[in-house]
Amino acid sequence: MTGYNIAVVGATGAVGTRIIKMLEETSLPIASIKLLASQRSVGKTLEYNGQKLKVQEALPSSFEGVDLAFFSAGGSVSKKLAPEAIRRGAVVVDNTSAFRMDPSVPLVVPEVNEQALYKHQGLVANPNCSTIQMVVALEPLRKEFGLKKVIVTTMQAVSGAGNRAIKELYSETKAVLNQQEYKPEILPVTNAPEHYQIAFNPLAQIDVFEDGGYTHEEWKMIHETKKIMENEQIQVTATCVRVPVPISHSESVWFELEKSGATVAKLQQILQNAPGVILRDDPVHQVFPQALEATGQKETYVGRIRADGEQQNAFHLYCVADNLLKGAAWNSVQIAESLDKLGLLCVPNR
Amino acid sequence: MTGYNIAVVGATGAVGTRIIKMLEETSLPIASIKLLASQRSVGKTLEYNGQKLKVQEALPSSFEGVDLAFFSAGGSVSKKLAPEAIRRGAVVVDNTSAFRMDPSVPLVVPEVNEQALYKHQGLVANPNCSTIQMVVALEPLRKEFGLKKVIVTTMQAVSGAGNRAIKELYSETKAVLNQQEYKPEILPVTNAPEHYQIAFNPLAQIDVFEDGGYTHEEWKMIHETKKIMENEQIQVTATCVRVPVPISHSESVWFELEKSGATVAKLQQILQNAPGVILRDDPVHQVFPQALEATGQKETYVGRIRADGEQQNAFHLYCVADNLLKGAAWNSVQIAESLDKLGLLCVPNR
Repeated sequence: MTGYNIAVVGATGAVGTRIIKMLEETSLPIASIKLLASQRSVGKTLEYNGQKLKVQEALPSSFEGVDLAFFSAGGSVSKKLAPEAIRRGAVVVDNTSAFRMDPSVPLVVPEVNEQALYKHQGLVANPNCSTIQMVVALEPLRKEFGLKKVIVTTMQAVSGAGNRAIKELYSETKAVLNQQEYKPEILPVTNAPEHYQIAFNPLAQIDVFEDGGYTHEEWKMIHETKKIMENEQIQVTATCVRVPVPISHSESVWFELEKSGATVAKLQQILQNAPGVILRDDPVHQVFPQALEATGQKETYVGRIRADGEQQNAFHLYCVADNLLKGAAWNSVQIAESLDKLGLLCVPNR
Repeated sequence: MTGYNIAVVGATGAVGTRIIKMLEETSLPIASIKLLASQRSVGKTLEYNGQKLKVQEALPSSFEGVDLAFFSAGGSVSKKLAPEAIRRGAVVVDNTSAFRMDPSVPLVVPEVNEQALYKHQGLVANPNCSTIQMVVALEPLRKEFGLKKVIVTTMQAVSGAGNRAIKELYSETKAVLNQQEYKPEILPVTNAPEHYQIAFNPLAQIDVFEDGGYTHEEWKMIHETKKIMENEQIQVTATCVRVPVPISHSESVWFELEKSGATVAKLQQILQNAPGVILRDDPVHQVFPQALEATGQKETYVGRIRADGEQQNAFHLYCVADNLLKGAAWNSVQIAESLDKLGLLCVPNR
């Protein structure tokens, strides 16, 4: 069979299983798919287009003959095995934060900066889920009016912390409804000392706390947005909150444009025609983006577009997207489709 | 018995029952308590300090001999019966939005603008729940550094829409967990044509949509903040989101101060000593405000204080308070305590 030999690392995870699903739907020519994971998952089987595929242990030698490898098994696995895959001739699309801020690694959302792929040296980083949907919504507006400042508050789904976090949300919610005890073990951060109830209780911590009182998730949104938009001058600040939702992040975004002349109607019109965007903005009929509608979809849903009544060129929008699809699996497969389309799906100097 | 003869209108509601509880804890001298509600609730009994009190129908004549009346039965009831209560000599503390923006009516959060009570003409309005906790957190900072602009995103509990909304959240959540059908009938807005699932699904609509694509809740936050702080120059803009939480609102607040010189440490120190505030701001130990901790408490919990890294004099904070207590019942009883303390608990020209 002609086509790419593909490996999925972290195949059994929340994102990995969705990468397999997206590969079923992709236009990429596929010769073979190899499912890789940690030793713990070896022997499990997963379906791809009706075939049952066995999960194998991810080892350096696993990447022999692989043309394209999707990594979604945590930063440490990517750091260890992505260079091994590249050395063996694969192009890596990495869904972890391991290489995102490496200046030599393109950080790509195809609707925004597909051209950055030309600079890849065997590895392309998939941005953080919360960043992706925001830049999909803001880029079409930035193109027309420039972007000066962004202030975002996220309401993020627990699946960003993996399948175990989804289970914790459901088990804990059942326990609370039945007035039973439940000891949280995953959220807000698996390896952190304190765990808190997410059922019926928003948690203003996603990932670990870092400099200046910001969490790593908040810093990701700040740095990644500038890198993807290739403009360090855009001011970005963020507050990231985990909410009791299984899938799809909701984001409240305030933004200031550089140029004057924007109106709500004009911004709506731009977003109506923007790639990867579905406009859901009809207050009269109570139409606005919702997690339930976005879940399972590839697009970013945008609405609640309003002018800041007291600051020129400043507006609000509200965007919702499936964090496991556009925020991860779909964006990764989309990157591979772009690489293929641009003739970049080979390691330079192979 | 010496003390005030008190009426609670809307006694059986989410806020009404908490007003009764707050009256059990108040330092106000109380001679008698009369529980009033719509005809539907007549005959129900509620406990006050171990006594069983029968709920009576709220009629104009109900207010004969009443010195102090708390209204929390919807705007239309306040519009109809508050003037009747005042005419009969009662001072009214109104928890609805009916009179809040009336220039002759003080809109009071005792920690912020207690002095506004001196201007009352028989009626004092209790602000909207989402506004109250935000101004409790911001006022101490405004006093020291002035306040130029506020951008807030709220994550509000369903109890703001009453007891029926709490029931809907729980019933709907159970149905979703059991993969059963559930038809939403209350949220986002009881009388609106469309109802949406709140279980595991944030809804970016609180109250009806109005001018400029803002909801009534968002306009309340904008207008009420300016009125309470007695400064129309403060820029305020808001996005209000309902989240699957029974009690306590969480708010992500970005704000710009007028004066320079503020630091995170200084703002923390001010809030540490601020009335009605409990500081929960220790990222190293994963300490930040949570709905679970605030529920049942009278204070506003504040944390996540951080500098906007790219704009001078701009900061973030995150505040959480029990929307039924500080957002409603407790603030109302606190207003009554202030009126009593200032010798204002009588209708002028009685």
